[in-house]
Amino acid sequence: MKNEEYEDSQLYKIRHTASHILAMAAHEFDPEVKFAIGPPIENGFYYDFEFSKPLTEDDLGTLEKSMSKIIQANLAVKHEMLSHKEGLTRIEKEDQPYKVELVEGIEDEKLGFYTIDWFSDLCKGPHVSSTGEVKAFKLLSVAGAYWRGDEKKAMLTRVYGTAFGSKKELDAHLAQLEEAKKRDHKKLGPQLDLFLFSELVGAGLPLWTPKGNILRQTLDDYVWSLRVKKGYQKVEIPHIAKSDLYKKSGHWDKFQEDLMKIETREGHTFVLKPMNCPHHTQIFARKSWSYRELPQRYANTTMVYRDEQTGELAGLSRVRSITQDDAHVFCRPDQVKDELLAVWDIVSELYAKVGFKDLSVHLSFRDPNQPDKYLGEARVWQKAEAELEQLAKQKNANYVVSPGEAAFYGPKVDFMARDSLNRQWQLATIQLDMNLPERFDLNFINSEGKEEQVIMIHAAIMGSIERFLSVLIEHYAGDFPLWLAPVQAKILPISEKFIDYGQAVATELANLGVRFELDDASETLGKRIRNAENQKVPFVLIVGEKEVADKTVTVRSRGEVEQKTVKLTELGNVFSIK
Amino acid sequence: MKNEEYEDSQLYKIRHTASHILAMAAHEFDPEVKFAIGPPIENGFYYDFEFSKPLTEDDLGTLEKSMSKIIQANLAVKHEMLSHKEGLTRIEKEDQPYKVELVEGIEDEKLGFYTIDWFSDLCKGPHVSSTGEVKAFKLLSVAGAYWRGDEKKAMLTRVYGTAFGSKKELDAHLAQLEEAKKRDHKKLGPQLDLFLFSELVGAGLPLWTPKGNILRQTLDDYVWSLRVKKGYQKVEIPHIAKSDLYKKSGHWDKFQEDLMKIETREGHTFVLKPMNCPHHTQIFARKSWSYRELPQRYANTTMVYRDEQTGELAGLSRVRSITQDDAHVFCRPDQVKDELLAVWDIVSELYAKVGFKDLSVHLSFRDPNQPDKYLGEARVWQKAEAELEQLAKQKNANYVVSPGEAAFYGPKVDFMARDSLNRQWQLATIQLDMNLPERFDLNFINSEGKEEQVIMIHAAIMGSIERFLSVLIEHYAGDFPLWLAPVQAKILPISEKFIDYGQAVATELANLGVRFELDDASETLGKRIRNAENQKVPFVLIVGEKEVADKTVTVRSRGEVEQKTVKLTELGNVFSIK
Repeated sequence: MKNEEYEDSQLYKIRHTASHILAMAAHEFDPEVKFAIGPPIENGFYYDFEFSKPLTEDDLGTLEKSMSKIIQANLAVKHEMLSHKEGLTRIEKEDQPYKVELVEGIEDEKLGFYTIDWFSDLCKGPHVSSTGEVKAFKLLSVAGAYWRGDEKKAMLTRVYGTAFGSKKELDAHLAQLEEAKKRDHKKLGPQLDLFLFSELVGAGLPLWTPKGNILRQTLDDYVWSLRVKKGYQKVEIPHIAKSDLYKKSGHWDKFQEDLMKIETREGHTFVLKPMNCPHHTQIFARKSWSYRELPQRYANTTMVYRDEQTGELAGLSRVRSITQDDAHVFCRPDQVKDELLAVWDIVSELYAKVGFKDLSVHLSFRDPNQPDKYLGEARVWQKAEAELEQLAKQKNANYVVSPGEAAFYGPKVDFMARDSLNRQWQLATIQLDMNLPERFDLNFINSEGKEEQVIMIHAAIMGSIERFLSVLIEHYAGDFPLWLAPVQAKILPISEKFIDYGQAVATELANLGVRFELDDASETLGKRIRNAENQKVPFVLIVGEKEVADKTVTVRSRGEVEQKTVKLTELGNVFSIK
Repeated sequence: MKNEEYEDSQLYKIRHTASHILAMAAHEFDPEVKFAIGPPIENGFYYDFEFSKPLTEDDLGTLEKSMSKIIQANLAVKHEMLSHKEGLTRIEKEDQPYKVELVEGIEDEKLGFYTIDWFSDLCKGPHVSSTGEVKAFKLLSVAGAYWRGDEKKAMLTRVYGTAFGSKKELDAHLAQLEEAKKRDHKKLGPQLDLFLFSELVGAGLPLWTPKGNILRQTLDDYVWSLRVKKGYQKVEIPHIAKSDLYKKSGHWDKFQEDLMKIETREGHTFVLKPMNCPHHTQIFARKSWSYRELPQRYANTTMVYRDEQTGELAGLSRVRSITQDDAHVFCRPDQVKDELLAVWDIVSELYAKVGFKDLSVHLSFRDPNQPDKYLGEARVWQKAEAELEQLAKQKNANYVVSPGEAAFYGPKVDFMARDSLNRQWQLATIQLDMNLPERFDLNFINSEGKEEQVIMIHAAIMGSIERFLSVLIEHYAGDFPLWLAPVQAKILPISEKFIDYGQAVATELANLGVRFELDDASETLGKRIRNAENQKVPFVLIVGEKEVADKTVTVRSRGEVEQKTVKLTELGNVFSIK
């Protein structure tokens, strides 16, 4: 099913209009205010202002009151198109320097304006037709933001808000924000002892504890178990390469600022890898390939590095060392469809396994009117795009096609899904690539004995394991399912007398391959049970006099009030991990 | 059993004298020759010369003839000690500028000289008492070498040779060298498609193919299977850290030249990690520990980086990206012995598994006369050293104690073993460390409720996986045992008609967890069998009409002439991997 784009939705219009209403309220608060920009964003909207007096979060109530009045008045939202000259004249009259700068940067002949009452704003739209359609809104926070995102330009005040078509939807969203705050992975991570940051190591460089590493490895092993069935093989590469590799790949010219560079004592320039594809091309290029030997599918979970600015870093969501569960497939054009299908299967299985819902895909195609912008033959593009859309239909997927959003080197598929908080995430991506095979001269001998260029498919499944885990920790609120839980069981002997029997239970669990801890600390049983609960351990196994006598274990399941007694020899049933 | 040091052995003296005899022969070849240095080395000796006319490997026969004469003459080797001034005078008379430079650099009051016939050489010895004791020798190669290893100084000519106490030993060694050349991992690596180097990625940065990665991973998984029984846990870290981490650890001051440094856009200095211990200290330091919670044992197979000079690189033996199967144990002083015992077990098991023989250990202790040179309390050192030697005895190990060879921060155990070519390698190392716990303030609360410093144990088992594999490839000559072989079986259908049945065999092998390839290429069966043999695949499974009819497989084992017929349902017996 082909989906509506957010940009075309009623919700988008509501939020867009809400941002204009916010601007009117800001003007009421400070008649000297200068307006910058005010777009809708994923979960709401913002507007950037230059105030002549300070605005704090305490003032948001005042702004909300002004906004409510404008909404209750149900004022019409009028659209008009002016010539560039007329538009500029109008803006200049209003003493709005940021708007003047915006207009001067626009090359279109016509400029759109949306007007509510006295407030006319340069804007492409779309908007709702009257302010009454903004049924529910809420201002959320105040932050600083550089004009045009440039730290050398003026610091403006950004007001964030959200709006919905009904109060019910707004309330659900606010409740979700509240819940998300409680589940914040930046809090849960240290609390569950999963990862840490060290000032000496540096910001944005997470260190993974034994428990956190079990999460990483268990997820990665699961993805690998799906990949191995599809014929993938693992390769390994160093985290650096000479700058020559990235000059040839094109990354040097495009991303030089983001690259971490090393000057060696001999005067070579090495680069800490920003992605793995160039290294993998070199593994593929080690020999000549027959059409019978393709596809070659190389998987490699490894870190890449970005020279992010400190201010941009956020927990695991944005880091400087990013672990990708990366893979590159080198195949013939006639194998692209089957390979995509295989990746699609893997993505669906993983998302289902972790309980993400509403899988949908976003197909980024080329702009058919500008064929010169793209590398590779038109017929290869057409075939690839047709196959992608066919695949989406075949898979009964919700999908959106965005012409003109492909990279110059190939079309792309983004997989989106919703977590338990109903937040939509873009995680896995498949990218077709005709550029690197051209740059690195990656060929095979086809059935007619001629050299032909391979197509390269980039397919990370979790994408960044750090970002994936930031979502997953919040999705599960740290209550990981049994298969993923770093500690699956805690053994609690009631007193020191029963530690020996606790050890026997431990041996049994070790034989079953269960990840457990034996907590024989000299604390009270109650405290140890609470501790296990705080650590969100799925099963607590209590052993005392009765259990020793009967060769049993008393099992408390996470979240369940009732305990049950299980024979030591039947513990396997408790942990039959699905 | 406490072993003799090589430096004290007769063999060492023989080689040392042989190098002086070589110098005499060089003088006969070129009376203008200038002498630099001529020490014994691990498997022989060398001498560095500045010749006035070129010397090539074709001239080695001439030198050998001169040497044989000197040996047959059985000339006495006389030792004398001169005062520094007398020695300098003697050397200056001889117009030997390198020797003058050497003497000028020596601060001792007395200088040793060894004289054979007319040739008197500045030398600490020891030597044999007459040239006739050099029973067997051979000159091996000629190479360039910078004076004092400094590329800004003169390029000298180095002549390598070897010598033994008997012709039989020499012949065995030469046969071994010949065999080693055939097994050279730099040749076998690409031939067996295990690893490659790319000019674009850079020298010393190996890329691991699917097959090579199976070797790495299988070995690493095996070491992990041993470690997990000893209570180790895996952690994970980024490959960079701020320079602050290495300033605190002390590596910055000591190894700054070898470090690969990165300047970020914000002006921070990051370092590509040269070792993992500083990162691991930060994981340990995340919380405070009770004595009951120790040891904490962190294992982490990950790469470290050294800014090696291009000229020093050699295949996998010396690389810029080094994968260490590293581990750090943080324990109480009273736990050191058990932890060492555990590591010892792991090392012995691995060495036995890969068939290394004659495990021996080298204990590096402090110099008891210079207690101030070492960090940490004397009683802790005494206890640790006593425990190490006790352990060596308890394990019935061949061991050597070297007082004064410990690092300032703790005693060390090196494990040596011989491969199938009888070459001795130093691979695993255990290092006790009282320095990093002090620098990073790593403590635990002891049973009396007081803070006490932990002891850190560094324990890589394979050490560098690259170097370990360079040895292992040559040790096995690429004929890896079944458990390690990247491809354990090749299925060869006699003709296209039997590919379907080949697929059925493949399914069976997949279910058995066997690593296989189905070679249905359109080449002759003979060629495919030879190809499998060249690839040193342990089992070749041939299927044709008879096999289809009988539901069997014809099995050829590597190195065996006779084939045998095995039922499809009984293939598991062939692959019962030990």
